[in-house]
Amino acid sequence: MSGRVDLVARVRRFVERHCIPLESKAHVHDPAALDAALAQLRPVARELGLYLPQMPVEQGGLGLSWVERAAVFEEAGRSYLGPAALNCAAPDQPNMISLLRQGTPEQQRRYLRPLAEGRMRSCFAMTEPAPGAGSDPSMLCTTARREGGGWVIDGHKWFITGAVGAAFCIVLAQTGEGPTQFIVDMDNPGLECVRAIRAIDPYAVGGHGELRFTACRVAADAVLGEVGRGFVYAQQRLEPARLSHCLRLMGRARRALEAAQAYVRERSSFGDRLADLQQIQAMVADCHIDLHASRLMSLDCARRMDEGLAVKTESAMTKVFVSEALNRIADRAAQMCGALGMSEDDSPVALILRELRPFRIYDGASELHRATLGRRFLSSKT
Amino acid sequence: MSGRVDLVARVRRFVERHCIPLESKAHVHDPAALDAALAQLRPVARELGLYLPQMPVEQGGLGLSWVERAAVFEEAGRSYLGPAALNCAAPDQPNMISLLRQGTPEQQRRYLRPLAEGRMRSCFAMTEPAPGAGSDPSMLCTTARREGGGWVIDGHKWFITGAVGAAFCIVLAQTGEGPTQFIVDMDNPGLECVRAIRAIDPYAVGGHGELRFTACRVAADAVLGEVGRGFVYAQQRLEPARLSHCLRLMGRARRALEAAQAYVRERSSFGDRLADLQQIQAMVADCHIDLHASRLMSLDCARRMDEGLAVKTESAMTKVFVSEALNRIADRAAQMCGALGMSEDDSPVALILRELRPFRIYDGASELHRATLGRRFLSSKT
Amino acid sequence: MSGRVDLVARVRRFVERHCIPLESKAHVHDPAALDAALAQLRPVARELGLYLPQMPVEQGGLGLSWVERAAVFEEAGRSYLGPAALNCAAPDQPNMISLLRQGTPEQQRRYLRPLAEGRMRSCFAMTEPAPGAGSDPSMLCTTARREGGGWVIDGHKWFITGAVGAAFCIVLAQTGEGPTQFIVDMDNPGLECVRAIRAIDPYAVGGHGELRFTACRVAADAVLGEVGRGFVYAQQRLEPARLSHCLRLMGRARRALEAAQAYVRERSSFGDRLADLQQIQAMVADCHIDLHASRLMSLDCARRMDEGLAVKTESAMTKVFVSEALNRIADRAAQMCGALGMSEDDSPVALILRELRPFRIYDGASELHRATLGRRFLSSKT
Amino acid sequence: MSGRVDLVARVRRFVERHCIPLESKAHVHDPAALDAALAQLRPVARELGLYLPQMPVEQGGLGLSWVERAAVFEEAGRSYLGPAALNCAAPDQPNMISLLRQGTPEQQRRYLRPLAEGRMRSCFAMTEPAPGAGSDPSMLCTTARREGGGWVIDGHKWFITGAVGAAFCIVLAQTGEGPTQFIVDMDNPGLECVRAIRAIDPYAVGGHGELRFTACRVAADAVLGEVGRGFVYAQQRLEPARLSHCLRLMGRARRALEAAQAYVRERSSFGDRLADLQQIQAMVADCHIDLHASRLMSLDCARRMDEGLAVKTESAMTKVFVSEALNRIADRAAQMCGALGMSEDDSPVALILRELRPFRIYDGASELHRATLGRRFLSSKT
Repeated sequence: MSGRVDLVARVRRFVERHCIPLESKAHVHDPAALDAALAQLRPVARELGLYLPQMPVEQGGLGLSWVERAAVFEEAGRSYLGPAALNCAAPDQPNMISLLRQGTPEQQRRYLRPLAEGRMRSCFAMTEPAPGAGSDPSMLCTTARREGGGWVIDGHKWFITGAVGAAFCIVLAQTGEGPTQFIVDMDNPGLECVRAIRAIDPYAVGGHGELRFTACRVAADAVLGEVGRGFVYAQQRLEPARLSHCLRLMGRARRALEAAQAYVRERSSFGDRLADLQQIQAMVADCHIDLHASRLMSLDCARRMDEGLAVKTESAMTKVFVSEALNRIADRAAQMCGALGMSEDDSPVALILRELRPFRIYDGASELHRATLGRRFLSSKT
Repeated sequence: MSGRVDLVARVRRFVERHCIPLESKAHVHDPAALDAALAQLRPVARELGLYLPQMPVEQGGLGLSWVERAAVFEEAGRSYLGPAALNCAAPDQPNMISLLRQGTPEQQRRYLRPLAEGRMRSCFAMTEPAPGAGSDPSMLCTTARREGGGWVIDGHKWFITGAVGAAFCIVLAQTGEGPTQFIVDMDNPGLECVRAIRAIDPYAVGGHGELRFTACRVAADAVLGEVGRGFVYAQQRLEPARLSHCLRLMGRARRALEAAQAYVRERSSFGDRLADLQQIQAMVADCHIDLHASRLMSLDCARRMDEGLAVKTESAMTKVFVSEALNRIADRAAQMCGALGMSEDDSPVALILRELRPFRIYDGASELHRATLGRRFLSSKT
Repeated sequence: MSGRVDLVARVRRFVERHCIPLESKAHVHDPAALDAALAQLRPVARELGLYLPQMPVEQGGLGLSWVERAAVFEEAGRSYLGPAALNCAAPDQPNMISLLRQGTPEQQRRYLRPLAEGRMRSCFAMTEPAPGAGSDPSMLCTTARREGGGWVIDGHKWFITGAVGAAFCIVLAQTGEGPTQFIVDMDNPGLECVRAIRAIDPYAVGGHGELRFTACRVAADAVLGEVGRGFVYAQQRLEPARLSHCLRLMGRARRALEAAQAYVRERSSFGDRLADLQQIQAMVADCHIDLHASRLMSLDCARRMDEGLAVKTESAMTKVFVSEALNRIADRAAQMCGALGMSEDDSPVALILRELRPFRIYDGASELHRATLGRRFLSSKT
Repeated sequence: MSGRVDLVARVRRFVERHCIPLESKAHVHDPAALDAALAQLRPVARELGLYLPQMPVEQGGLGLSWVERAAVFEEAGRSYLGPAALNCAAPDQPNMISLLRQGTPEQQRRYLRPLAEGRMRSCFAMTEPAPGAGSDPSMLCTTARREGGGWVIDGHKWFITGAVGAAFCIVLAQTGEGPTQFIVDMDNPGLECVRAIRAIDPYAVGGHGELRFTACRVAADAVLGEVGRGFVYAQQRLEPARLSHCLRLMGRARRALEAAQAYVRERSSFGDRLADLQQIQAMVADCHIDLHASRLMSLDCARRMDEGLAVKTESAMTKVFVSEALNRIADRAAQMCGALGMSEDDSPVALILRELRPFRIYDGASELHRATLGRRFLSSKT
């Protein structure tokens, strides 16, 4: 256990000494600049024994349980460079899990190993623009039909985080036998990355791509897992992915809070130090209460996952609460910083505000989870 | 552990079979009627092995740890009769702890034993009307001066829960040597229970009394604990008392939610079953999320207390969050029930709403805790 | 105009000198005690020229326009006795309007005149317990069938405000020709007031009755308005009724705020006067902002009604906003008063909190209005 | 009046046909690109008779009263290009008012006329970084001392909206005789625009500059108004400036709402059109309620200003309410649009969200106004 505690302290130190000093507004909406920063940070992380905390030891990881990951992910998340520097950021992190679970040995050799070693990046192509699959996967419009011994994929995807500069994508497409996962190399001539969508969150590694599959041919061995089980895999992917987001983004919100606290300790107005004003004190208290509750809900999920228990309901409740709570924290932090909190050059707070906003939408909007949860509670007898 | 789980199920059964059927609007603001109900319920609780869960075995209790108490208190709390039926309700529960810790053997014989056995009730007299001690104990106006071998107490107290029908009170008074706790028999001629305050919460066992101490003489052995250490004892009392409130009142809020869920499952409006409407589903989801977070925060406090860790900060954060969350739950439950939720005769919800409202004020208003917490976080370097 | 300003000042004086001194906890859930207080107050109001402000001069009223009524109703509403003392309280006020618009000369002679003169009270029986008409009038289960030259009414109503001690009710019942309004004398042998429902709001004049119509025979001239147009009349009744509620209850919320302001100006804690604490200042500011917005929205509705414009949408928006805002005000007022705010004996605040709570449900729950408004905005092209 | 109504329709048409088609992500943080767009739009606005609505006719304006301006500003505000295209955007709009009121004929000739004609832009330099004047003007650190016949200004300003590309600034500096306004040409060698601050709001005309005054010499006639009355002028400037912001930004929030409404009318998920889901309907309703209340509060201020009444309190209440309400509207609009609402390329919503965020801080943070308002209400006897 003391090794784990020490690990958290070492991650914190790594973030303070290596990641934060490298943070730069030049990274905003610039995947290449981000990749360059990561290329600098990952060797350091590896040398310090912090790399790949979530993967099994045999894959080169630290083999941490979910509970152990919790504090590590939160500490890494204080910098937007931290999780990717440790190679525990989305979408590579869940893609590695998918390849580990559903990949053939050959797929693992070709895709999992270089991902784990940080030699390539990847993306996961599920979301489609209207009228395709947004939060409702059953509206999937992308298709794959068998032809020759292989498949031909046609379709349109967007908000595909990590697409710019990725080596391959895992794409979800409808087949005659049901939704299916395929691995497609990004340089496949039938796959075009139309553009990088400029989203409100400024720092996505690999941006948010819009992809078009046009008569995109792949071989039979491009299928990941079993044909027709694509939704099942997507579901399995979702719960750990959500929890990982919660953990990492708690670090981001905490960073904003730390910046706000430092500011109000120094700044005065109308004869009072801001930290001595009750409204500021109340905002600080509410931030810590939100953070405390977020942490406990996330830890509870982590514990259940380590114990192999179902977390369908807990994970959805946690996602809703944490995403809303972290946005409240960042909003209060910005408010406490006044004009400084609105400058993207002079404080990390404004950009954290932008970074956290989509979390209330991505991975299922809060409203969707509330409706689903409500129906579930109302149909059970609890 | 399975014995503990079983215990929770047995408490639940006791509440369903014995407490809820005895609930009656005749108990509203009628301490005598409440006492009569308890006299009926306590022997059953004792027989079923559910009595005094929080006290050590040697005092006739079940010797539960804080973590073990958590689910038991919540289940008991589903009925307003439950906690008192098990003799784990305030103010007797914290008074027993004070007597256990600070009482002389003789005080324990005279006061603790009959309290534990349910043969008498007690109260704790700290709060004073303006300009005395409300949330700020340093404003204590009640005094005790040495005279003869004993003490003479003068002062004015109000919102003294449990006062009506109590056999004794523990009163906090200022002495030349500092604030001090005294045990005063309620039939002391210098102590008058001026009235029972009709507060918004309808079911306080023993009501909320207003007490006047006029040249109230007590012997030297009326001092509980050491002279001058009254505030220290009051502080020690506070944290477990808060947590116990959180646990019991979670049961009350859950009861309101259960009633609302049952109603919306049956009731239709404009062609839809209420349970099929998204706004209702979202309210139900938010209630469960609030309850889940409340439970995890309370359990975390309980675990820390069992481990002997400090909970000063956690207990205050928990009190603020849980009191606000439970009020949101009851409010949503009432709203879901429509007119039915406004009737105090036809559903438990309206009275639960009234019962929970003061929890945001008693034991320190949310605003007070927020200011204190904020200052603490801002003066530390976290 | 100066006469109108003066009128508001005179209403304020009447409330301060006559109504508030008569307020008493003995009125809680005691319609007879309330009636006795009104019997004392109405002659004074009449003598002071304040009586019946909303009725035409030819009916003995002051003939105020809606805009003129606004400030008068708000001032009257500061005391729970005020509106009824001026005979501008629900349900008599909207019943007078219905009788004025739809009543035959004979019905006006028999029912409107004594109502206006304050010689009798009335009620309006629409709401039914599940599975009948709650917020959805189309679920109306009460029926009226023609028999002999008259009608026979059967059905079950509840939450019929004003029923206890009323001389007659206007009841909505389904007929073969559509929903229809009937005037039924309360002493009709086929009509039983089963009980007064103890609702969370403590001061309803005439309480909230549960009525049972069992083969209740009425003559042909009991029909109010045209057969089959009951819903149209109920709709017409609703918009002015809602606005009147908003106006009167703003006075109640303001009363709570005044009490809280007076308290925090005097009370100190931890070395500060409460009024000097920023959290208190922010609560006070938010109360005034809520009140200001509520007033402007109500006045805008009043102006539109005076100009004969449609207020379907504005009236619903106003009802939602004002009911939620007034509840926030009362809640903050209670919170500012601490324990005092929880005592129903020592401050008006706790009972105002109870009085205002149902306003978010009665006359259409906020959720219902939101869904209807949302649909309307989404189907229009605005 | 019909001319005014027609004016609003014409502004709406201008915005639809000319401004919105010119909107481009190339304008984000690019003052030069914005200026180019304005150079294209202003002649059209002038030709259509929509230019300079707020200025007196003798200054080439339309001479609208505040009430008349309200709807015009809101319509113009639907596009971020609208208000500047009509030359009624901050900071030029309030600067023109200052020059009109306090300027000498020569100052008006040199600065007001070209501003009004759109031949130059200006800025207002008050805010300073810590420890200077933020929300508290008394902390003013910039100084001006008399030397020769003129003045020498030294100081540091930031968040000076409009600075990039401005021809002159009005700067507030401390003198021995009190705070004083000076007009300084931006090409003064003692004045450097250090940088444009990249703030969260993307479209400020002229950006947000950081300015450094180093031994900046100006002639005696650079003083605007009287020496020592700078704060009085700044105060006078504030109230109309706030109201103008409210009016313009209501248009922005409405634009976001319109986009969201259009989206949910088309988009389906899980078998339902989003517009048919109650949670969406409730969000739409709450947006319209917030907008309705914001409009009425702004109009009330406008009316008072037209009547020459004080609006100190009303203007602060309006600023707090409207800034918070508009942020709620934009946030709900983004949430309704899902992933689309997060794209800055595919919908205006995400950028409107960023644009509105600072409004809760600029012109006095909500917390500051709440404290000030609370104190004012608590010290008066209302």
